[in-house]
Formats: sequence, C-alpha cells, structure tokens
Amino acid sequence: MAGNTFGQLFRISTFGESHGEAIGVIIDGCPAQLDIDLEFIQTELDRRKPGQSKITTQRKESDTVKILSGVFEGKTTGTPIAMLIPNEDQRSKDYSHNTDVFRPSHADYTYYAKYGIRDHRGGGRSSARETAARVAAGAVAKLLLKSQGIDVISHVSSVGKINAPAPDFSNADRFIEEREKNIVRCVNQYVAEEMITRIDEVRKQGDTIGGKVTCYINNCPAGLGEPVFDKLHADLGKAMLSINAVHGFEYGSGFAGSEMLGSEHNDSPIPHPSPVGKGALIQTLTNNAGGILGGISNGMPIEFTVAFKPVATIMHNQQTINAKGEAAEISGKGRHDPCVVPRAVPIVEAMAALVIADHLLRHRASKL
Amino acid sequence: MAGNTFGQLFRISTFGESHGEAIGVIIDGCPAQLDIDLEFIQTELDRRKPGQSKITTQRKESDTVKILSGVFEGKTTGTPIAMLIPNEDQRSKDYSHNTDVFRPSHADYTYYAKYGIRDHRGGGRSSARETAARVAAGAVAKLLLKSQGIDVISHVSSVGKINAPAPDFSNADRFIEEREKNIVRCVNQYVAEEMITRIDEVRKQGDTIGGKVTCYINNCPAGLGEPVFDKLHADLGKAMLSINAVHGFEYGSGFAGSEMLGSEHNDSPIPHPSPVGKGALIQTLTNNAGGILGGISNGMPIEFTVAFKPVATIMHNQQTINAKGEAAEISGKGRHDPCVVPRAVPIVEAMAALVIADHLLRHRASKL
Amino acid sequence: MAGNTFGQLFRISTFGESHGEAIGVIIDGCPAQLDIDLEFIQTELDRRKPGQSKITTQRKESDTVKILSGVFEGKTTGTPIAMLIPNEDQRSKDYSHNTDVFRPSHADYTYYAKYGIRDHRGGGRSSARETAARVAAGAVAKLLLKSQGIDVISHVSSVGKINAPAPDFSNADRFIEEREKNIVRCVNQYVAEEMITRIDEVRKQGDTIGGKVTCYINNCPAGLGEPVFDKLHADLGKAMLSINAVHGFEYGSGFAGSEMLGSEHNDSPIPHPSPVGKGALIQTLTNNAGGILGGISNGMPIEFTVAFKPVATIMHNQQTINAKGEAAEISGKGRHDPCVVPRAVPIVEAMAALVIADHLLRHRASKL
Amino acid sequence: MAGNTFGQLFRISTFGESHGEAIGVIIDGCPAQLDIDLEFIQTELDRRKPGQSKITTQRKESDTVKILSGVFEGKTTGTPIAMLIPNEDQRSKDYSHNTDVFRPSHADYTYYAKYGIRDHRGGGRSSARETAARVAAGAVAKLLLKSQGIDVISHVSSVGKINAPAPDFSNADRFIEEREKNIVRCVNQYVAEEMITRIDEVRKQGDTIGGKVTCYINNCPAGLGEPVFDKLHADLGKAMLSINAVHGFEYGSGFAGSEMLGSEHNDSPIPHPSPVGKGALIQTLTNNAGGILGGISNGMPIEFTVAFKPVATIMHNQQTINAKGEAAEISGKGRHDPCVVPRAVPIVEAMAALVIADHLLRHRASKL
Repeated sequence: MAGNTFGQLFRISTFGESHGEAIGVIIDGCPAQLDIDLEFIQTELDRRKPGQSKITTQRKESDTVKILSGVFEGKTTGTPIAMLIPNEDQRSKDYSHNTDVFRPSHADYTYYAKYGIRDHRGGGRSSARETAARVAAGAVAKLLLKSQGIDVISHVSSVGKINAPAPDFSNADRFIEEREKNIVRCVNQYVAEEMITRIDEVRKQGDTIGGKVTCYINNCPAGLGEPVFDKLHADLGKAMLSINAVHGFEYGSGFAGSEMLGSEHNDSPIPHPSPVGKGALIQTLTNNAGGILGGISNGMPIEFTVAFKPVATIMHNQQTINAKGEAAEISGKGRHDPCVVPRAVPIVEAMAALVIADHLLRHRASKL
Repeated sequence: MAGNTFGQLFRISTFGESHGEAIGVIIDGCPAQLDIDLEFIQTELDRRKPGQSKITTQRKESDTVKILSGVFEGKTTGTPIAMLIPNEDQRSKDYSHNTDVFRPSHADYTYYAKYGIRDHRGGGRSSARETAARVAAGAVAKLLLKSQGIDVISHVSSVGKINAPAPDFSNADRFIEEREKNIVRCVNQYVAEEMITRIDEVRKQGDTIGGKVTCYINNCPAGLGEPVFDKLHADLGKAMLSINAVHGFEYGSGFAGSEMLGSEHNDSPIPHPSPVGKGALIQTLTNNAGGILGGISNGMPIEFTVAFKPVATIMHNQQTINAKGEAAEISGKGRHDPCVVPRAVPIVEAMAALVIADHLLRHRASKL
Repeated sequence: MAGNTFGQLFRISTFGESHGEAIGVIIDGCPAQLDIDLEFIQTELDRRKPGQSKITTQRKESDTVKILSGVFEGKTTGTPIAMLIPNEDQRSKDYSHNTDVFRPSHADYTYYAKYGIRDHRGGGRSSARETAARVAAGAVAKLLLKSQGIDVISHVSSVGKINAPAPDFSNADRFIEEREKNIVRCVNQYVAEEMITRIDEVRKQGDTIGGKVTCYINNCPAGLGEPVFDKLHADLGKAMLSINAVHGFEYGSGFAGSEMLGSEHNDSPIPHPSPVGKGALIQTLTNNAGGILGGISNGMPIEFTVAFKPVATIMHNQQTINAKGEAAEISGKGRHDPCVVPRAVPIVEAMAALVIADHLLRHRASKL
Repeated sequence: MAGNTFGQLFRISTFGESHGEAIGVIIDGCPAQLDIDLEFIQTELDRRKPGQSKITTQRKESDTVKILSGVFEGKTTGTPIAMLIPNEDQRSKDYSHNTDVFRPSHADYTYYAKYGIRDHRGGGRSSARETAARVAAGAVAKLLLKSQGIDVISHVSSVGKINAPAPDFSNADRFIEEREKNIVRCVNQYVAEEMITRIDEVRKQGDTIGGKVTCYINNCPAGLGEPVFDKLHADLGKAMLSINAVHGFEYGSGFAGSEMLGSEHNDSPIPHPSPVGKGALIQTLTNNAGGILGGISNGMPIEFTVAFKPVATIMHNQQTINAKGEAAEISGKGRHDPCVVPRAVPIVEAMAALVIADHLLRHRASKL
C-alpha cells in the first residue's frame, strides 16, 4: 500500500520524479468557495525553489505552478484541485555515474531493495524536489487557515551549533518580514549573519551541515486533534518526519521536558471568562504543553521544532558499494544545498498547514 | 473523523474508558495461521499493568485479557481478533472532585472544549489505561514479527538527567533478561539503581519526573516503509507521539544530527556479497541513519528514542480554573505513577511492533 | 487488507464468529452528546434475532446487547462506542459434519481457499449472525438520523414471485406499525398473508426461497454524497451488497430504467421558492432518480431495492466435494431460515442508516 | 470527506472538469516492474472517446494520454503514475444557457445545493468526461491482470428492450474481436444490428435510451474479496454504481435469483483433484454464485450486469426551474450520446479491472 497521500479530509496526493516531465499534486477535500490567490501560492514556491541565493543549490527551476482543475472564476468548487509544476533544468547526465553505485546515506539502496528498479536520475522520487508539490498544496491550506484567522509561521532556529534565541512570534506579518530580510530565514538578524557565514564556510569545504526549524501556529482554536491515535501533535510529527532529511521532532517542552519535574512542567491556567464555548481559549502561564493537551489543541500557540540532518551529498570522495556489493568510490556531483534549513522553512509550514486544515475539517464532525 | 484506529493493513481499533466496564481492541488484518500464545500476551500486559512495584501507581488491575474472536484452536483465522480487558479497581469516587475543575496539564479542558461533555472519572478515554489495549494488540504483532525473526526491544535510557550508556542490543533475549532484573527497566544495573533512587525521592516529594525510552528493532528486512508520506520513521514517530505524555521523537542521529557535518554523518556501506535480493541487508560502519534511508528500512538495526514529560498529577496544591473560568485550587488525588517510563517500555515496543507488522504487510504489494 | 470496517466518518468495525464467545461492534466517530436509547437498540436487534416466528430459524439467541464504552450518563461522549452481544445457543456439534465437506453455495470453500484455515462451526465469520452487530450499530445511526428528522424504513417487497404493490411510505410510524402486524414484514397485509403461506410451504419441503426488500429514506437533506466515487447510491449499493445473500441492488428506476427513453425517464422539477439554501429541497413530479442525482441527494425520498438469493442450507441431500476434491454428499442440518427477507428488514435499514449518517458527517466538510 | 479516490492498495485519484484545462489520474500502489504498453492504454481510451460513430456524441476529443511520472524506461517504478488528458474541444458557450437553469435529471441542482457554487460548463465535474481518466487507469490495471492471466471483458447485453443472448466468453480475444465488429459493442452481430437501428431511431427523435452492459472476468483466482464489508461483489457493485447513469447492479443469478428456490439456486461442486492450494479453482455445474461465495471469488468466472438509465440530455423542450425556484423551460443543446452503453463498455471493464487489481494486492496480506 503506497504512501503518496497525506491527510484524511483535506487530503493531498503528490506525484513526480526530480528528472521526469513534471511534479504535481491533487488536493481532494478543499471546501468550496475558498478564494484562491495564485500569486500567494507562487510566492510560497519561490521561497522553496532552488537557486535563490548563494547558500542554496544552483539548480535553476522557475517552479511555475499551473492549476488544472477545481478552481472556477477564482474560487474553489469543492472538486479536486490539480496543480502541475513542470521540470525544467534536468541535467540527467550529471547522474549517469549513479546508475550502479549507491551514494552513502542516500535512498538509492533502499529504493532498489524495495522495488528492484529505480529512476537513478537525481534521486527520482526520493529527491526533495517532491516537496515543491507539498508547498503548492500547503499554500492552499494556508489560504483556508487565513480565512479562519490562523497563522502558521516558522524560521530557522539553528544551523549546526548556532542557536537562535526564542523569537517573538505574536505578530505573524512582522515575523515573516524579519525572517525574509536574510537568506537563511532566521528572524534574529544577528544570529542569521553567523549562520550564513557558517554555511558558506561549510560549502567552500565541499561539506554540508544540519540545522533546525521551529514553527508556531497562532490562533488555532481549541478542540483540534482526534484521540487516541490521531493526536494533533502525532499528526504534526508524522508530517514533519515525512520531510526529507528530518531526524527528530519535539513539541512544547520536547526533549528538555523529559528532564523536568511535574511541579516545574505543569502549566497553570489563568482565570478567564467562559473558557468553554465557541472559539474557547484557555490561557496558561507557561506553555510546556506546546498548545496541545491529550492530543487536542488547547487554544495556546502551538510550538514545535524539527531537526534536519546534514545533506548527504558532499563534494568529497567517499567509500561505498555498487549493486553487486563490491567496493566503489563516489564523489558528489550535481548541484546541491550545503544546508537545507533555509529552503525547509516553507516546507515545514506547508505540512503544518495541511495538518491543521485537515483537523479543522475533522473536528466539525465531533459534535452534533 | 475520529482517530481510534491505527495501521493500514495490520490495523487496530481500541475502545474503553479508565472507569468504564472494560477496555479492549480489535485487530483487523492479522494474517491467518499465526500461532497465538496467550501467555505471552498476558506477560506483556503484566509489564504495563499498575501496581507492579513501589515506583509505579498502586492502582490494582489484574489486566486479564480474554480473546473473543478470530482465533480457532490456537491459530488466527484471518478474521478480526477482539480482545477484552475488564476494569476492576475503579475508585470513581476519587475523581468526583474533578467534575468541574480542570487539572493543570491534563486533557480535562481539551476534551470538554472538543466534545462539550466528558467522562471525568480518571481521565476517561484520555487515561493511559487505554494503552493496555495497545499492549495486547502489540503482543500479537510481536508474535507475527517473531515468526519472521524480527525482535523489537526497548529500555529506559534516561530518568530526568540520569542517562544510561548505549547498550548492547544484539541479543534480544539477554537484553530483556537484563532489563527485567530491575524495576525501572534499564539494562544497565548500575544506572538503574540511580534511576530508582531518583524516582523514589521524587515520589516522596509528591512530585513526578520525566524520562526517555530507547527502542531497537533487530533483523528488520530492507524495503519496509512507503514513500513519500508513510516513511517508516514517520509512522514510527506518529505511533510514539500517540502515546500519552510523549513530547519528542528522534531516530538515528536524531537532534544531535542537526549539529553535524555531512562528512561526519554519512554512513559508509561495507562491501558485502549481493546486497540486493531477497532478505537483502546492507551494512554500514556507523548507523546515523538509524536503519532507515529515504523512509525505507535498509537492513541495519532501527534505533529511536522517545521523550516522556513528567506525569501531570502531582500531590501538591496547584492553581487552576473551573468550567466557568474562575480560579480554583486542586491537589492531586487518586493513585498515580511518579515516573511513567518503566511502564512505558512495553507500550513503546507494542506500538513499534504494530508499525513494523503493518509495513511488512504493506511491503508485499510493492513488487509484482 | 481486511474488510471488517465500514464507513469513513461514522465508522463501524465488527468482530465475532457465529459459534465463538461473542460478537460485537465498535462505532468510531459518533458525535458527542447524542442521547442513547438502549431500549430502542434492543428492539432493533429483536427484529433481527432468530426464533421470532415460525418462518424464521429456531435457533434461540436473546441477542442482549451491552454497551461497554463511549456512553456516559445516557449520552455519547465522542469516544468509541463498543457493544457486545454474547453468543448463547451454540450447538457446535451440529456442524461437526462440515469439517471437511464444503456445503454447496456456502462460503466454506472460499474461506478455506483464502485463509487455509476456517472455523467450520456454523459458518464462523461468514454466518449472517455477524449482522446482529450491524443492527446494533445501525440503531445508533438511526438515533442520530432521528435527531435530524430523517427516517429510514423498509419492508419486504417480494418473496419468490409474490410482489407487493408500491406502498405509502410518507408516514414512517404508520409504515412501521403496518409492517410489524405480520411476521413477514410486508406493509400490505393481504400480500403478507400470501408470502407467509408460500414461505411455510417451502419450509415444509425442506427448501428455501429468495425475496426482495425495498427501503425508503424520508427527509434526507439535499447535498449528501461525494463525487465521483463515493456517490450516495454507490455507498448504499456497497452497503447492501455486503449483506449476506444479496445478489442485486437498484435505486430509483433501477433495471426498469434501462428500458426507458430519456423523455419518459426525466423527472421534472416543480417550481418552489428558493430551492437552494439551507435544508434545500427540490420537488419533482416523478422520482425515477430515486432521490439522488450525480451521486448527491436532491431532497426527494431515497428509494432502493435489494435482491436476496434463497438461503443455501436446504434439508435435501446434495452432491458436493470435500477438501481433497473428492465427491461427497451432504444434507442440511442445523437450524436455518426458509427465507431471509423478514429478518433482513432491520439489517437493510441498519446499513442504510450507517451510510446516511456517514455522509451527513462527510457533507459538513464540503463548504467553508 | 471528498470522494475522488478509489481503491485501497491499487488506488486511483481522478481530477478535472469537462471544460477545464485537462483531466487526469494518479495511480498510487501499482507494483514496480510492470511493463507499460502506452499503445494499449490509448486503444482503451479510443473505445471510450466521443465522436467514434454515428451513435455517439459528435464532440471531438482525441483523448491523447501522456504519462508524467512513475514509469522509467517502459516499466513502472513503484512510484505514483500520473496521466494527463488535455481537453480540446470545449465549446463552453454551448452551456451558457445553463448558468441559472437546472437541467432535469442532471446533477446541476445537487452540485449547487452541495457546494453553493458550480462550474456550469458541460456538467463540470459531474460530466462523464471524468471517466476517461478511469479508463486510462483501468488500462494499467488490465496490464497488471494480464500479467497474471486474468481477463476482464464486457459487452452491451441490452439496449432498451432488445436483449442479447448469453454469449460464449471463454475466449477473451475472440470475444473482443466479435464485439468490435459493430459500433454498439454487442458480441451478437444479429442483435447488434437491431440495437443500432433502435438507437438511431431514438436519436432522430431527439431522444435517448437506456441499456445494460454485462461483464465477465476469466481466470480470477479463488480467494479475492475481504469479508465482511469489502466483499468482492460489494466492491464491484460500488465501482459500477459510481459510473455516470448507472441505476442497478446484479451478479450471478441477480434479481432473478430472488425468485428462485434454494434447491434450484445452489451450485453443485464437481469433484476435482486438490481444490485447495495455490491457484485453487473450484468447478460447479451452474454458476448462480457468479463466481463469488461469501464475498470471496471461488475460481469460477465472475459475471455481473450493470443497468444504465437513458441520458438525461434530450433535444426536447422540458419544464424545469431556475436557481430561484421559478419555472423555466430548457431544450437540450450541446452534443450528447443517444445511448451511453457502447461507450460504457471500456468504462465498466476499467472499473472492474481496478477492483480486481486492488483485491489481488489485498489478498496477498491475508496469509502469512
């Protein structure tokens, strides 16, 4: 049972290989009558696209999205929304050396083991190029959330060992404005400079480096999340872990919470008129819960962090094996990112927006 | 759309509240002709059950499981396996004080906000008692995996700031034997002593403490996991994050990987005859990948760690609010665990076994 | 991928064999705060239960249902509703002759071919006894529909070649009252007599006979059904075809419609103030559409008919084969129905109610 | 929860409106290493396409399909197969008269009632044009089935009251050859002539007529179908009922079976060496079961019939209403089929092939 579909009620299915004709996505279940701002969708894609700065891969793709169905006179009709992004700059020859040799820490071996066949050009389906389709779909989810006043925003919170301090995320527009002032997408300009320097240094060494993205969801209503398996943070976690290169996920107090005492960790609710009712919001002094209790949003901001490993393609000679299991040597070719986190920001937001949109629709069916 | 079902092909649905008649589970999709060892299922439940030592809650439940269907003359028949665990020691009166008051960092508020009604006795459906049903189902999944030579084993890798060193997990039987020698379920006896002392200390203070469980899956064949959303680690992550009190998940290099360089992080494959083919296994010098590349198992051991927050019920007076939003004070009553990780070990294993069993079946359909 | 689950948002999973401990069902996704009338659920079960009249099987089962979870103080809580029906009158010995011999037109051979093992006692999972669990779940769906003013009613429209005329179904209570006046469950008392006589005649010959059930759904709002695959009539059709012994389904003009001209078949809408809007209803002069256009309910009554084959167990000697493929002879034993349709009435209604409840919840997510 | 996805393991999602940019489909779950014969896919589409004869609509669409992903060097790779069919001959202006007026027995009203918005050009999503995407996907399913020796063949068994006799379907190639000798797609040449004459007569009157398609599946292995809800015939029934204009489905003895006695209806198995085992086939003297017992294929040919209503668009003046509920008159414009069954043949086969392919994959997981 293949796994190219995500979501239950707001559901996407992506398709396409990095060096095929096109990639794309179908959104099934987007409610009717939503205004579709194509320019906004394109802006989101532009933040993910390659070739945008010196610290991203130099592959050039305009990533121009085209809507094939589901939108009529600027509004969704309730039918499937198909979006297509043609591939342009496919230098498939760059990958001819990969035919028989498995690149270390890439999916070459596992795709081969699973299917007995693989499209070796640039990773094929395992390429992060597939995430462009997610960003396009996520942009539609964001439009849905915006219509309900919900903002999903994220930034780069670390590159290697350089960590950004906790930002003020209360104003989404200002947050995005600050973040987009620098090419690494960290809202703290000072730390951003350090991060850029570090990435550039690593890039010059033909190496790569990991990092983290932290995401905030403001104004999420209380009540989203479905016990006991489809907890809101469980679905957010799965969404994030499905992004290429992600090795960890934590929300609220996260891993640090495992070192705390209950008396430190508990969040005290603040008295507040009628906490239960339509649009009910609870307020707590601290937010170790990360906005989620028992798998259900409590109305506080949702906060989580995603850890990315360093990109596997490095410009060094590496020992590996070929399909016969014999020793082989490989050196990275092609055009790759020295650090994925600047381009991962819109992907993290897209996947988070998809989860929240899905749970908004799911929540409608929980009460009469 | 409710979320009480987990898995696609090996699929479970749980039901029941902590203070209702019974809890239970249906397994749909367990292949026919599997030998069912009821004693083994009971042993797994006994490791999760309350009242087993001084560092667990004193609530008494024998947690005796009964199979209602799907097994005939000791073998599965391919039809749904229903298992029932009656509730015995329900001191519902202990919870009468919860009717109108929301316990801090509990799901009381969010269930109320979501459904407009809640079974306030002991958390109802949000109680970790529900996980007994998962352990019963997971035991069946373990029997399936054992028949294929796959072992799922875990232990407590930290309590608060006390961390266990990386264990030798190559021999599953010995690993389990060592782990069960102490009540905290850490394979390192020396560290286990420290952990027990710490938990006992915290318990005496009426407080609670967090911890981590690390899990290993040995002999998992290459090829499990479904790109691009149902990556093996994404489903493992969701499974773990769906367990009560979990705040974080990482696999392989995890969060530490985000601080590394590509040249440090890449795992080099070791030459090995015919790596591709039936039961293909790759071997790498290091295992930063945690046994999974591109979301597909590569044949190396799968390794991941789960972070648990401290239990929210503490025996201190705490400030909170009631359903009207007014200030209220609450002090923990009932019988609770000072630290969940010793009892979480079988739950982590159960959920991991369910994910692997599901992906084993899913993988069958990926090649002709 | 096993198939013991039905529905998407209002979803049921059934379990249990005819001669095991118990049968039962989990409903997941029933909205919270629905009043549960246990007596109503039991009444529905009583209409399906064996031994209720001379024209049904003499197997005795009280079919007493017990709710294990999901209901608190008489109302649903939004958590899974588990219901259990113990098996009582299991004369398993009656079936010892079936161990190696395949009964003609029974599922004995196919279960064996599929699973390589089978619970031979009374059909095991393939027994129509499983439908008791559906009736219990369907009763909850009916309570949900009643709270929205929707009625699901059906009766026996034919037995063998004896056909009832089209009934007046505009008043659900009167319809049910008339239907329950006779043991065959046909609202036309005169035709009912004929049917009963025919069934009794067939029964005395040790034979069985087929029949049809016709179902009406009143006050179903316009807009239910999900293009293009989950059309309302497609889901109704699947639901009906999943009932034991069903060989055909038609809605609206049905098979007769295939003989008509478009000019005869088209239903003309009657002018009506504001047909589009909340609770919009269209009215048409005829109802060849059966209340559904393009897979979506149009507000007119939904009408469909279900064809049941004669029960396969007859009291005659029949030629068959055993598991080795050798010739064998078999004569029906056990206690069986001479005609299933009188007991099928509540099953048809239960499955229809489950489909409508599911689509009611699904429809909520189609507009913002 | 939208319904544009069909199948569980061999799963398709279609998109597109009749007068939008394009229609298309994603197949997710097609096993890797299947040879893809693009010419075969195109031939299937050509049998469904408009404008192929005097008894089909004169709309011209070349329906040229393009594969965007999932196929590499002529073989499937296990990744999603996206196929695109551009729309060419969109005379949207033909439909400007539909903006506010609901065509009788069309989905205009119900889409409007459901979504509050609709693409009025030619039915939009409710147009049978969507079925071209199904035929493309079904052709891939047929290639999968052919690789396993399974044939899915159908023909027109009635037009209005003209019925074809039961055909010899034992040789699939000869069956198709005979069927394609005439434009109505009935294997009996004599009856085909009558049918064509009747359709032509109706067409000249500006009217339309219904009909039936009967389908046969040869060499389907025993064991396909998942009790208790996803019975093989229940999934076939849903698949057929999801096709535009279908009003009825029956398999095996069908509706006629409801008039029979058990002693007439039961199929007697013929002694046969080792009926149970790999590729097990049972043989019965008659086939009232239609190849399916207890929802599981028994190895005999699968047989079912699908009833189509007459096309709703007729060239007569008809009374209807507009969106305000006021009386309005409408006369059919645009280019339409006088009878859908000749073009429905490849659609019925496509949906049947999708069901069987899906259940083949599902069946793999039922035994260890």
